[in-house]
Amino acid sequence: MTQTVSSAMVDWIAVDWQADRIAAVALGAKGIVGRRETREVASAGPQSHEAALLALIGDWLRPGGTTPVLACGALGARDGWIETPFRKVPVALDPAADLVAAPASDPRIQVWVVPGLSQERPAEVMRGEETRIAGFLAGNPDFDGVLCLAGITTKWVHVSAREVVSFRTAMTGELFACLSSHAALLRDPERAGRDDGAFAEAVGQTLSRPERLASELFSIRAEGLLRGIAPATARARLSGLLIGAELAAMRPYWLGQQVAVIGTGDILDAYVRGLAEVGIVAETADGASMALAGLAAIRAGMRTGTA
Amino acid sequence: MTQTVSSAMVDWIAVDWQADRIAAVALGAKGIVGRRETREVASAGPQSHEAALLALIGDWLRPGGTTPVLACGALGARDGWIETPFRKVPVALDPAADLVAAPASDPRIQVWVVPGLSQERPAEVMRGEETRIAGFLAGNPDFDGVLCLAGITTKWVHVSAREVVSFRTAMTGELFACLSSHAALLRDPERAGRDDGAFAEAVGQTLSRPERLASELFSIRAEGLLRGIAPATARARLSGLLIGAELAAMRPYWLGQQVAVIGTGDILDAYVRGLAEVGIVAETADGASMALAGLAAIRAGMRTGTA
Repeated sequence: MTQTVSSAMVDWIAVDWQADRIAAVALGAKGIVGRRETREVASAGPQSHEAALLALIGDWLRPGGTTPVLACGALGARDGWIETPFRKVPVALDPAADLVAAPASDPRIQVWVVPGLSQERPAEVMRGEETRIAGFLAGNPDFDGVLCLAGITTKWVHVSAREVVSFRTAMTGELFACLSSHAALLRDPERAGRDDGAFAEAVGQTLSRPERLASELFSIRAEGLLRGIAPATARARLSGLLIGAELAAMRPYWLGQQVAVIGTGDILDAYVRGLAEVGIVAETADGASMALAGLAAIRAGMRTGTA
Repeated sequence: MTQTVSSAMVDWIAVDWQADRIAAVALGAKGIVGRRETREVASAGPQSHEAALLALIGDWLRPGGTTPVLACGALGARDGWIETPFRKVPVALDPAADLVAAPASDPRIQVWVVPGLSQERPAEVMRGEETRIAGFLAGNPDFDGVLCLAGITTKWVHVSAREVVSFRTAMTGELFACLSSHAALLRDPERAGRDDGAFAEAVGQTLSRPERLASELFSIRAEGLLRGIAPATARARLSGLLIGAELAAMRPYWLGQQVAVIGTGDILDAYVRGLAEVGIVAETADGASMALAGLAAIRAGMRTGTA
């Protein structure tokens, strides 16, 4: 998306920096004045990151002025723009705390990076999800329960009294991507419809017998060869087996809890349907919207707070 | 490897055709007279497969004569040289049964393909492993127990009274490859030593609680970031978690059984050490040697039998 945005309208810029894309939103007095996204992410190091950001938002900047840029995610990683120290859980979601200034050579920007969260045992880290959590809590300040941040990796986060108490990561999305393409489990991973029955059945298999994941995966390929099962069924089985195994692993998180799933598209949908199989009606929220809401809450905290 | 082999010395050629390599052995009156291997495997279709084979063994062939070529593996798949029908288990390991002639335009070769095995429920297929099994049984005719054919996919095969009774496939090797490189769980997947203690501990975790696989994998990355664990430890943990989950899935195969592992290198080693954690001292046999032994047994059956 490219719009004509007068730089005079831009008060600040919110940036959600993910491993494979950068999403930027320009905000003015009346709210959002522009949105852009790029897949041209940076290689390692501050200069490459600054160049990638300027390529995306350069024409939004006031010549002679300084526009604040507030960013979360991968730019705070070790090979990012500047490595930000993790805040350790349990931690209060004081979103404007511990912001880190990223060094920029272009005087038109002042870049602040939201630090990620870490957990000692079991060892866990997140970068970017903490901002989505802050966004969700900005709209649901009394939420007490579990947030499932669904993505290529998925975080299960226990939130209580505006604190992140603990969290755990599953690599289900990575496994799905690996198995469907690299390991050729799905002949046609992109083009496939739905088979909700096969999905539900597969969730049940690995939820009740998680050890079956290792032996059931190959059956998808074998059934394709022997019985020619439909691509949609194969895809639903793969997704269901993986989600079922994840739900078995994350039982201490969702059991008896209020659960909200934050994400988008097919991945969000798979978690909502998987949770329905264990009797949980989950709230949902859009991931990009929660990131923006979180950055806006942090920006508001910066104006009134000490950051 | 390239040797000078006089085509006059070659009685027949044994070919082990895998997804990523073709291994050929020339056999004469006194046994092996030449060995070659290539990574230049064919694309789909008979012509491409014949060209790949001739590139590898063309100079072993007698001009004006016809050399028998006996082959197992991927050339019998749907997109191979000729699709061979599966033999359904339970099935007697009569290795020369149901050989399929592959059409060749070069009159110097007569190519026979060993058919794979299939199982109705749970759906399973193998192509190539049946020949290794035949090779193992040629040397161990009274074996009654379980063969673990370790590889990028691993087959657990129940053998009794010279029959393949049932089998099951695990995709542990595929998962290891996906997670270590694509998903960047291991910073340096190639260069890593051993950490047998970490391996054993990880096997125990997923063997007793297989659902933990989904939640423990990401901890390898998080521990690397937070505590800088050694690459050898990270690799051992990933391997151990996956092998433990596979052993949990395959418990009905190994529990109370005599087990032999057929494979090579690190993968063979990981299964042997994993089985040791459940108290099983496994026999071992080399995969390539068993393939050759199997093809030789089939060749002997062809001379005396009806194929």
